[in-house]
Amino acid sequence: MYLDLSEAELAEYQSRQGDPADFDEFWAGTVGQARAAAHPAIVTEAVPQLSTVTLYDVTFTGFAGQPVKAWLRLPADADPAHPLPAVVQFVGYGGGRGDAIENLLWASAGYAHLQMDTRGQGSGWSRGDTPDEGASGPQVPGVMTRGIDSRDTYYYRRLITDAVRAVDTARDLEVVDASRVAVLGASQGGALALAAGALHEGVAATVARVPFLSDFPRASVITDDYPFKEIGDYLAIHRQKADAVMATLQYFDSVNFARRGRVPALFSVGLMDPITPPSTVYAAYNAYAGEKQMSVWRYNGHEGGGPDDDLAALAFLADRLPRVAPEGP
Amino acid sequence: MYLDLSEAELAEYQSRQGDPADFDEFWAGTVGQARAAAHPAIVTEAVPQLSTVTLYDVTFTGFAGQPVKAWLRLPADADPAHPLPAVVQFVGYGGGRGDAIENLLWASAGYAHLQMDTRGQGSGWSRGDTPDEGASGPQVPGVMTRGIDSRDTYYYRRLITDAVRAVDTARDLEVVDASRVAVLGASQGGALALAAGALHEGVAATVARVPFLSDFPRASVITDDYPFKEIGDYLAIHRQKADAVMATLQYFDSVNFARRGRVPALFSVGLMDPITPPSTVYAAYNAYAGEKQMSVWRYNGHEGGGPDDDLAALAFLADRLPRVAPEGP
Amino acid sequence: MYLDLSEAELAEYQSRQGDPADFDEFWAGTVGQARAAAHPAIVTEAVPQLSTVTLYDVTFTGFAGQPVKAWLRLPADADPAHPLPAVVQFVGYGGGRGDAIENLLWASAGYAHLQMDTRGQGSGWSRGDTPDEGASGPQVPGVMTRGIDSRDTYYYRRLITDAVRAVDTARDLEVVDASRVAVLGASQGGALALAAGALHEGVAATVARVPFLSDFPRASVITDDYPFKEIGDYLAIHRQKADAVMATLQYFDSVNFARRGRVPALFSVGLMDPITPPSTVYAAYNAYAGEKQMSVWRYNGHEGGGPDDDLAALAFLADRLPRVAPEGP
Amino acid sequence: MYLDLSEAELAEYQSRQGDPADFDEFWAGTVGQARAAAHPAIVTEAVPQLSTVTLYDVTFTGFAGQPVKAWLRLPADADPAHPLPAVVQFVGYGGGRGDAIENLLWASAGYAHLQMDTRGQGSGWSRGDTPDEGASGPQVPGVMTRGIDSRDTYYYRRLITDAVRAVDTARDLEVVDASRVAVLGASQGGALALAAGALHEGVAATVARVPFLSDFPRASVITDDYPFKEIGDYLAIHRQKADAVMATLQYFDSVNFARRGRVPALFSVGLMDPITPPSTVYAAYNAYAGEKQMSVWRYNGHEGGGPDDDLAALAFLADRLPRVAPEGP
Amino acid sequence: MYLDLSEAELAEYQSRQGDPADFDEFWAGTVGQARAAAHPAIVTEAVPQLSTVTLYDVTFTGFAGQPVKAWLRLPADADPAHPLPAVVQFVGYGGGRGDAIENLLWASAGYAHLQMDTRGQGSGWSRGDTPDEGASGPQVPGVMTRGIDSRDTYYYRRLITDAVRAVDTARDLEVVDASRVAVLGASQGGALALAAGALHEGVAATVARVPFLSDFPRASVITDDYPFKEIGDYLAIHRQKADAVMATLQYFDSVNFARRGRVPALFSVGLMDPITPPSTVYAAYNAYAGEKQMSVWRYNGHEGGGPDDDLAALAFLADRLPRVAPEGP
Amino acid sequence: MYLDLSEAELAEYQSRQGDPADFDEFWAGTVGQARAAAHPAIVTEAVPQLSTVTLYDVTFTGFAGQPVKAWLRLPADADPAHPLPAVVQFVGYGGGRGDAIENLLWASAGYAHLQMDTRGQGSGWSRGDTPDEGASGPQVPGVMTRGIDSRDTYYYRRLITDAVRAVDTARDLEVVDASRVAVLGASQGGALALAAGALHEGVAATVARVPFLSDFPRASVITDDYPFKEIGDYLAIHRQKADAVMATLQYFDSVNFARRGRVPALFSVGLMDPITPPSTVYAAYNAYAGEKQMSVWRYNGHEGGGPDDDLAALAFLADRLPRVAPEGP
Repeated sequence: MYLDLSEAELAEYQSRQGDPADFDEFWAGTVGQARAAAHPAIVTEAVPQLSTVTLYDVTFTGFAGQPVKAWLRLPADADPAHPLPAVVQFVGYGGGRGDAIENLLWASAGYAHLQMDTRGQGSGWSRGDTPDEGASGPQVPGVMTRGIDSRDTYYYRRLITDAVRAVDTARDLEVVDASRVAVLGASQGGALALAAGALHEGVAATVARVPFLSDFPRASVITDDYPFKEIGDYLAIHRQKADAVMATLQYFDSVNFARRGRVPALFSVGLMDPITPPSTVYAAYNAYAGEKQMSVWRYNGHEGGGPDDDLAALAFLADRLPRVAPEGP
Repeated sequence: MYLDLSEAELAEYQSRQGDPADFDEFWAGTVGQARAAAHPAIVTEAVPQLSTVTLYDVTFTGFAGQPVKAWLRLPADADPAHPLPAVVQFVGYGGGRGDAIENLLWASAGYAHLQMDTRGQGSGWSRGDTPDEGASGPQVPGVMTRGIDSRDTYYYRRLITDAVRAVDTARDLEVVDASRVAVLGASQGGALALAAGALHEGVAATVARVPFLSDFPRASVITDDYPFKEIGDYLAIHRQKADAVMATLQYFDSVNFARRGRVPALFSVGLMDPITPPSTVYAAYNAYAGEKQMSVWRYNGHEGGGPDDDLAALAFLADRLPRVAPEGP
Repeated sequence: MYLDLSEAELAEYQSRQGDPADFDEFWAGTVGQARAAAHPAIVTEAVPQLSTVTLYDVTFTGFAGQPVKAWLRLPADADPAHPLPAVVQFVGYGGGRGDAIENLLWASAGYAHLQMDTRGQGSGWSRGDTPDEGASGPQVPGVMTRGIDSRDTYYYRRLITDAVRAVDTARDLEVVDASRVAVLGASQGGALALAAGALHEGVAATVARVPFLSDFPRASVITDDYPFKEIGDYLAIHRQKADAVMATLQYFDSVNFARRGRVPALFSVGLMDPITPPSTVYAAYNAYAGEKQMSVWRYNGHEGGGPDDDLAALAFLADRLPRVAPEGP
Repeated sequence: MYLDLSEAELAEYQSRQGDPADFDEFWAGTVGQARAAAHPAIVTEAVPQLSTVTLYDVTFTGFAGQPVKAWLRLPADADPAHPLPAVVQFVGYGGGRGDAIENLLWASAGYAHLQMDTRGQGSGWSRGDTPDEGASGPQVPGVMTRGIDSRDTYYYRRLITDAVRAVDTARDLEVVDASRVAVLGASQGGALALAAGALHEGVAATVARVPFLSDFPRASVITDDYPFKEIGDYLAIHRQKADAVMATLQYFDSVNFARRGRVPALFSVGLMDPITPPSTVYAAYNAYAGEKQMSVWRYNGHEGGGPDDDLAALAFLADRLPRVAPEGP
Repeated sequence: MYLDLSEAELAEYQSRQGDPADFDEFWAGTVGQARAAAHPAIVTEAVPQLSTVTLYDVTFTGFAGQPVKAWLRLPADADPAHPLPAVVQFVGYGGGRGDAIENLLWASAGYAHLQMDTRGQGSGWSRGDTPDEGASGPQVPGVMTRGIDSRDTYYYRRLITDAVRAVDTARDLEVVDASRVAVLGASQGGALALAAGALHEGVAATVARVPFLSDFPRASVITDDYPFKEIGDYLAIHRQKADAVMATLQYFDSVNFARRGRVPALFSVGLMDPITPPSTVYAAYNAYAGEKQMSVWRYNGHEGGGPDDDLAALAFLADRLPRVAPEGP
Repeated sequence: MYLDLSEAELAEYQSRQGDPADFDEFWAGTVGQARAAAHPAIVTEAVPQLSTVTLYDVTFTGFAGQPVKAWLRLPADADPAHPLPAVVQFVGYGGGRGDAIENLLWASAGYAHLQMDTRGQGSGWSRGDTPDEGASGPQVPGVMTRGIDSRDTYYYRRLITDAVRAVDTARDLEVVDASRVAVLGASQGGALALAAGALHEGVAATVARVPFLSDFPRASVITDDYPFKEIGDYLAIHRQKADAVMATLQYFDSVNFARRGRVPALFSVGLMDPITPPSTVYAAYNAYAGEKQMSVWRYNGHEGGGPDDDLAALAFLADRLPRVAPEGP
């Protein structure tokens, strides 16, 4: 059922999230430190192997040089002599990179596919292998309030930096054409795609399905669904911290990354989604500064378009990241 | 949590399901009629296409010659000159064949992969396109009690026949080596795999994960989870039909198909599964007459081993259905 | 609690459901075919019998001449020499005609009472005995999406035709005065009463309590309660079929039957009803073209007025269908 | 699902409820006081009236001479010259006598039907009109713990006395044959039937469906369903009162009334009933001292046999309370 | 999540609850009768005793002279020569006065602390020892509808009178300075504080956290949470009593007591509270006629400010009821 | 309801948890490192202050010298010249030390009361202020699986060490008699009390209510309640880690601390507790090597005895830790 704004209101909705003056400085500093601490990625063949796709286990360095896992999946006939376009994928809340043999679509469609693990998660609906190193204050179970009292200690500072570094990693692969790299994800993965698309100049296209972390001022009071509700749970106990928490969240809101969007972006939204309510998705979409389009699913919740979103992404990426690079004259 | 027999009891458990004298006759007649009414399958290329896998839309004739949909997925380099081993997959309750671009594992692993649609379902968690033609009496929502007053009108008579015909269809494909065809599925799909493996002599191996439809006399009273509970709901209203319903179910119980198992079979079970409780899975496993092995997942529910079940199946099939047919002398 | 429009808004609310140009043609054709295929009803005494009411088992022919069950209950002293007014009753979603000894009010009040069974349901809260013959595509459990891809195959085409034929059947009984026949039901039964009242010229009065199937465009997005939600579940998977489904539903919407209402009608509504939300009931009521009145229950859900609705119907029918036919001059 | 003893264990199960030495004395005193304070019942015609059944509003005096409401329903042709057998009915937890036009089965079947209201309840699923006069200590919402610290103040002391007085009232009616009076009820109503059948020598037969209030020592720890759970809720707070409460309950346990059963009794049980779990029903049944039979419903919960229990009761009462009194020689 | 009016609307909201002309007369009569029937309180030392606080068991006479329990907690060095300010506390729905050793804050902060028991409740989350003597009609479990058909028999007439008498009792204690007595409570306790503060001229300050019983016309239709929902449950069955019930509730609505507020009052509200929705709290707050302040908790439900409300109350009372009485000249 | 072993079985139940040979070595090393890194506690007056109790904010060093918060509450007349017995309290899962003005019982009863905060929790039902510094792998929300792949990184290694250090801290206070220090807690707090009581030789008595973390081999499969279920959730995804996880948990199981119990211990258990099921509590109790007693609450869940457990602890501690130290000769 519809519990949010009407479609007409959604089309016009503007978040009241503030845009801190030092937003870009904060992120430039954070990403810069990560790059300064970076080591080359370690890439090894996974077990077992398949026939049409080759699977690799990847360890790259993310926030503050900390190790982060990923899977790299390539068409079996991939050849550095003909670099491939790439899809860097981020995962939804609670999940990890899963198993190497899962999620074969993008490599089967001819892309180099780098799927980043999610630090400290990866135990909910798909498994992960990456710890979250970093201090955490008192917190609600989950990661939404881990270190939330300060932008410097907040969990998503670390995770978003990992995402930017995943793009670096993909672009550094010999088999990848660094000019044709897209970021893609759903929910938390969609938020990471928006963030990486804004923070990394090498991204060529962004696919953000039912993106999360968007419009905290509204999201924190219009839904009782988790994980947004973790914030409300925290403030229900730490009543005196509401201002500090809201100040922290400005630096991580998808709305602020969207305001910095440059590349073509494909969004999707489920109008019956209680987890990332439609107005929060439109908050990011309406703020998005680059070329954009939205798939609207009128009878769906947080699953959005499911395989229909995949089909739309295949078409969108085929246009923006042609599988065969255009030849020069 | 554990709600069923202990592991020691599970290992010994024998279902008290009866084995009707005319079971084989009933099924021979039903399958025979379907084959008598059969037409050649129609195979067309699907849209869109991928790079490493080729996708086909298939319509074959199932029960009573009625049309049934399927997807055929082949490695892009498949070549009738070198026929492939095949995996025929059946789907869990509520789902359908899904979308062509989903479920790429088996073709990526080098198999011809035929995924059968599920008549009259395909609207729950994955979509389908096959109607269920056939009279139905009063029934509980779902298909568990559709036509259940008689073995002749029962829904699963039609669906199991479709599954046998799907094996026929796979074996008839030029690109398939008819001697290396496996059946595979989870839950309802596992029940169909057991049934097709028992009813079709051309099956070479069976993978039945957390198989459903097993041990109705016990299953109907030890769980309140759907879809088994549909039977209880029906009998709670149609109190006078308990004997007739239980008589019908004898002809469709996975236990009776397992008693007729011939080929090597890989089972799995989740010891915390309330949907196909472990004793019902062991009822089939312990009754299975052929070579068999069981993956036991101690902390899982109905999801069983998930990707770990996939890994186990890849290994199991690699042994039984070698991707390259053994050469003759 | 109130989750829908305010009372003032309800009083003014108009559904935006379209009224197809060939609506009447479609139904005239469908009903005509059923009558062309009709056979005389079979009426036999039920077991056991009571003292003050006589109970009969009825089989009449409904859609396409298919057999449909019903109960006929008569005051024990009924006498064809003094034909009685009749109440034809339809049943709510999931239920069937129940048992002969249930539901004795209408016969005890002096009416011939024909209670129609509900094809393919009758296994939820009261039992039924009538199968639903007819093809069905992929569907969500329940009957709301059975055959919904086309008006011709949709389940409610068959059920509404049965309802019209039940009126034929009642009027054909020797003991009934064909000029004093009312239709009555709650929820799905109320929808059937509105449909039969519009489609059958021989109906003299309509009682539609908390009528269902009303205002699909709004109902499909303002409640998560079943059975309306079956439609949303279907479209959440079959995303590409939304237009086709909505086109089908125009031919079955209570709003369109209400627009064709001629006879005096008694409605009721529960202002806290999440199953047939008040605005959907008012959508039919406000559209009703004949004389009408509404019982508003401010603190009730889908049960509406319960026995108070019975008392209101007794009074309403006593006025419109006097138990003793007016004497001629 | 089955959560209680196996069928074999149920057949042998004996409650460990104690039988207090002064049980009979306590009840003789209580009933004696009520009769000493009794006034003649007031019987007036109800509004509206039906055709085949005549409806009366009754006020009789129950516990301590307090007024209690009831409905009397008679076949329209009832005649004191030919006194009728009678059914005195008691109602389930939370409900009241309902509306006069409801519940027409027994009068339609030829019985004088007196349906007693339930003091202080009658606001849950059917309405009532009788207050519960009497002091109550601290209590859990509901009536299970009202005054439970002492047998003298316990709610059910008052309600059971009302039930005995309802039998007095029915037998005093001119239109009733005092030698052919049955008591009947389901759940709480079944408990009252067992109690009245034991305490009142004028009862000729007892129908106790899924009887409640049985085997408190076991019932209080084997189910979390209400209303039994009210006792657990009370003792979870009033931890020091467990012995006093259990001492009180001995005087109200259906097991102790069953031990005093004399007349033929028809029980029923739902083997999946969490509200009156099967072992608690068998506790009363197995203890029943008179002629007895049990309808076992294997797939039902607390609804038991529903209309099938009605059919069984009609047959049972037709044997024990013939509608036409046997003629003398 | 927010389900009620916006903050801007809350600030302006005015309840449409009527103010009966004889409201003051009704309460003056009721309280007068209680005082006329009053006996001196009985105060005895509790077991066990603590070191820094002395605990007393109190029995005073409330409504109609009926006995009501309370705890009196005093700082161990309390001395009648230097009378203390006092806090009279009332308890939330379902609870009782609890145990003597609980709830030590107010005595530890230097107040004489009288905590009143809640008649007929005290079995939910804290225990009580006070019965509710008085007739009750048919009712929903709980006390919200006990005797609700008339203002004279309504449960809250008795409980509010007890609260006024608790203030009498505190002021009569030798160790208390009768000019410095505050009333305090949360939820139902907050409603009693508002009522006692309005009805008793000797109250010097009122603390009403998330007060209950406020704005029945709105509260009865905007939440499904208990205990407000008990009223809806009652009227869903007793449909014909809606006007009578609403007429009764006018005499017990916190809004009408707030309209009579004189002393400084501290309120609190949780903006996500479904039990006493914010608009009902603001209904009382906006109507409050005396000096007032409100603690607004944006992310809390019915727990409101929890310990932060305690801290606010300590500060509020320290100003209004200085622990050392101001010296005279 | 009872879902676990019978009372007779509970009395005999012995956990099958293994006792690793290097258990004592592991803990000696861990605690030794913490003490080596320790700094003196920082103690400052809290705001606001009360009259009869003085409140202090404490920061001591716990695991690896990391800062941990606590509250110290003293009777206002505490005097180092007459050192007090002390109660060191640990908090249940999700909670923190709360607010200074809460939890006044122990100081009011004459004890020095040190209430330790819970690192990284303190956002659930009471607030905390202590971060959890330390690496964490992929994990389920909560702390049960944080770092669980190794005993060295497991969360409870850090928290239990904090608890031992809290005892050090209390004993170092001038106002405390180091020979009369008890540890106390419920649930997680009870587990910490058992651990600190076993690991710290200076503890004189232990109060462990409904202790948690006990008997992991059984607990992990007999309940679906959190937080035990976090372990099952983790192993449902990380299927291959079951042995490693179970090996880690041996070092943290209350059973193994109980086997090392020396001082008198008071336990409690709720026989209807699904969170720390009774058999897991008895697993620790039956293994406890020192003098012991158990309060059994037959109708309680995880709340156990609530205030009745407080009363029992007051009596137990009054015997073991007399408030006035015994005088010498």
